[in-house]
Amino acid sequence: MQNKLVEELIKIVGKANVLTAPEDLAVYGYDGTFQEARPEVVVLPESTAQLSEVVKLAAATRTPVVPRGMGSGLAAGSVPLPPGGMVLSMTRMNRILEIDEENATVHAEAGVVTAELQAAVEKRGLFYPPDPSSIRHSTIGGNVACNAGGPRCLKYGVTGDYVLGLTVVLADGRILKSGGKPIKDVTGYDLNGLFTGSEGTLGVVSEVLLRLITKPHYARTALAEFAALDDASRTVTAILKAGIVPASLELMDQTAIVCIEEAMHLGLNTGVEASLIIETDGTDEQTVQREIDACTQICQSSGAVAVKMAHNEAERGTLWKARRSMAPSLARKAPNKLGEDITVPRSAIPEVVQRLRQISVKYNLPVVIFGHAGDGNLHPNILFDKREADQWARVEKMVAEIFAASLELGGTLSGEHGVGVLKRPYLERALGTTSIEVQRSIKQALDPLNILNPGKIFPV
Amino acid sequence: MQNKLVEELIKIVGKANVLTAPEDLAVYGYDGTFQEARPEVVVLPESTAQLSEVVKLAAATRTPVVPRGMGSGLAAGSVPLPPGGMVLSMTRMNRILEIDEENATVHAEAGVVTAELQAAVEKRGLFYPPDPSSIRHSTIGGNVACNAGGPRCLKYGVTGDYVLGLTVVLADGRILKSGGKPIKDVTGYDLNGLFTGSEGTLGVVSEVLLRLITKPHYARTALAEFAALDDASRTVTAILKAGIVPASLELMDQTAIVCIEEAMHLGLNTGVEASLIIETDGTDEQTVQREIDACTQICQSSGAVAVKMAHNEAERGTLWKARRSMAPSLARKAPNKLGEDITVPRSAIPEVVQRLRQISVKYNLPVVIFGHAGDGNLHPNILFDKREADQWARVEKMVAEIFAASLELGGTLSGEHGVGVLKRPYLERALGTTSIEVQRSIKQALDPLNILNPGKIFPV
Repeated sequence: MQNKLVEELIKIVGKANVLTAPEDLAVYGYDGTFQEARPEVVVLPESTAQLSEVVKLAAATRTPVVPRGMGSGLAAGSVPLPPGGMVLSMTRMNRILEIDEENATVHAEAGVVTAELQAAVEKRGLFYPPDPSSIRHSTIGGNVACNAGGPRCLKYGVTGDYVLGLTVVLADGRILKSGGKPIKDVTGYDLNGLFTGSEGTLGVVSEVLLRLITKPHYARTALAEFAALDDASRTVTAILKAGIVPASLELMDQTAIVCIEEAMHLGLNTGVEASLIIETDGTDEQTVQREIDACTQICQSSGAVAVKMAHNEAERGTLWKARRSMAPSLARKAPNKLGEDITVPRSAIPEVVQRLRQISVKYNLPVVIFGHAGDGNLHPNILFDKREADQWARVEKMVAEIFAASLELGGTLSGEHGVGVLKRPYLERALGTTSIEVQRSIKQALDPLNILNPGKIFPV
Repeated sequence: MQNKLVEELIKIVGKANVLTAPEDLAVYGYDGTFQEARPEVVVLPESTAQLSEVVKLAAATRTPVVPRGMGSGLAAGSVPLPPGGMVLSMTRMNRILEIDEENATVHAEAGVVTAELQAAVEKRGLFYPPDPSSIRHSTIGGNVACNAGGPRCLKYGVTGDYVLGLTVVLADGRILKSGGKPIKDVTGYDLNGLFTGSEGTLGVVSEVLLRLITKPHYARTALAEFAALDDASRTVTAILKAGIVPASLELMDQTAIVCIEEAMHLGLNTGVEASLIIETDGTDEQTVQREIDACTQICQSSGAVAVKMAHNEAERGTLWKARRSMAPSLARKAPNKLGEDITVPRSAIPEVVQRLRQISVKYNLPVVIFGHAGDGNLHPNILFDKREADQWARVEKMVAEIFAASLELGGTLSGEHGVGVLKRPYLERALGTTSIEVQRSIKQALDPLNILNPGKIFPV
């Protein structure tokens, strides 16, 4: 990195917002994966105007720009690979600019932590539903860049379903404002949708305008245990066919249940093949109760060996504790884990779980399966020890076979994590040549110098 | 049109599917607006493969291609303007290819009439919610091209919210398949979203894969009458704030009520400033009843002078008859009408209605106001007599002022009709230069020869 560029950056954002010391650079070179690489400079703009000037300078000097929220991504989308270039940390743009109660919208800078945004709107009786696991540290801008999901997205939809408007700094530094407060808008192409989920490759999201809903005041939660995974899977379809859309319909397979029970001693029945955590919610208590009762009945008539209802908030907390303690439980079980994010048509869940088990046996490494069964989005986690080269080699082969299984069953590579670096090799098989050509042509049109998160998403 | 091109077209789709007789061409040169123009040839492909060959030929011969469903559009998006070129009628691709009950999806060709698609899936207990007024004659492909809405979209979302996958013939004839049956998918850019609402300018949608829901079995409908329009508007917000999302929340202003009553003699109270038609629906009868009861209470405490509940299907039919007879009632009142489609933030409804009334007074032509108040999407209809040149001149000025009012209040040009030809002059003011530049660059990337619906959407 030329001193000249650093000087220019300091002129734009101030000395405190340009980092070049090796120990600082190291902090901005990783995410939630094993990938790690150092940028040459980290810039932390404090406004859209500053961001625009920074990107203009990057374009003029052909400096790669890797936008970054809190680095919780699971596809290495915000890791500066190849090493070098500029990491653009959005964390100092963390103001909530407006909460509009009449129109139920929030306007915020991209660096606001999503849980903080949720808390702020809930104080006004409003609600922002998407709930990625990373919610306490990931930023709303990162959520938009990845179109993040979460357990509650079965009923409420994913991040993109709440994006009404975006402020985006384009590859040449121009500032684009898309959308607005109107709920319905077909005036021109859907640019909100195009930038959402584009992983920082088409523009840098600097501000978001989100649709909100009224906060659901009541929730009911049940844990249903099934001797046979097929029965759990059929139950998911039966509940949805009955016209009930629970807030969450989370599946844990036996490997997941055993893993959690070993770590947490919650009294889970480790003898069953699968459990479902079912939660209904809403603003009318009786309706919420009727829905969970109907779900319970469906579970029982679909072969559940037990349905445990939470009778109060404490019991509800205990049920969710199982699901939420998944990550720490896995960490206890093996030094490393690699979590995938396949999505299959709902009807293919039993078959894909079967195949995941076969892959686990074939390569002799545990695969723990859990996820959002209602929308077919599963997180198979491979447990291994990275220090053993042989194990890592096996993991790589397993990942390839997991993706192959998903695609063969009409599924896809990612439901909520994105492509980033890690899924690039599989993209062509997932989408086909024409789709990739179309996407590359859009990338070329919007970022002709290829400076925005270069090398991400597309096969190299 | 050279005979050679017609000959080639006949080789691809057969003689019966190529029309060149003037009386045939006239049939494919209009839509739901006043615009009309003749193409030089009409082609009716019967498969995606044929369509692909037709577009290849069009590209090779630089022939403009104007895709068309049933021509019910309200922005002249499917009118071949400038005259000439090829109209591509999708009406012979009208097969439903698969209804997947397990995964709640339907795969259909673009030319299926939307009401027929709805009826087919309802036979299986499934439901496709979007309900544009044109539903009995418009095609699902046309609905996707315009991202059509309708009264039921407040609760259920618009056409684009149901698009899981598309088959699109690109500008050079390549066939793109985007998306698939998985509900969640962040594998690459959101191409479904980009093509939905692009009005045939980026590709020709030939097949659609739609997400379905379980059919709601119960509905309750009420008509609430308000002495003051402000009260009706506040009621809309109060209902949504209470956490109730009715299927429909339709507003009619006094001009609309008077107009319908004069035509239909339904016993509507023409002395009130506004009425709301409120409908709740769902799969649980008690919940649906509780929701309409809560809505009724909110109406009463927000100043409704009367709330009339439908006690059976016949009474429900009568209430909807008022809303549905809007178009014929307007036709009775004046030789011509021009219906706009502005969307404003919900809180701006009283103000925009006020301004619409002022515009009506200023130009001395009636403006009838109705629409989907829940999502701020209003249809101001100007009544006039086209034969009087002076009136048409006034209408044009009124339209400009209506758009200006919407934009000034944070609204936009179109909630569900699209831009087509008619709203092009206002696009830059609505979206700004940067947005249009970005959209043009996408158009240029995907259709470098500018043969797909050239001249639509963008200012000329």
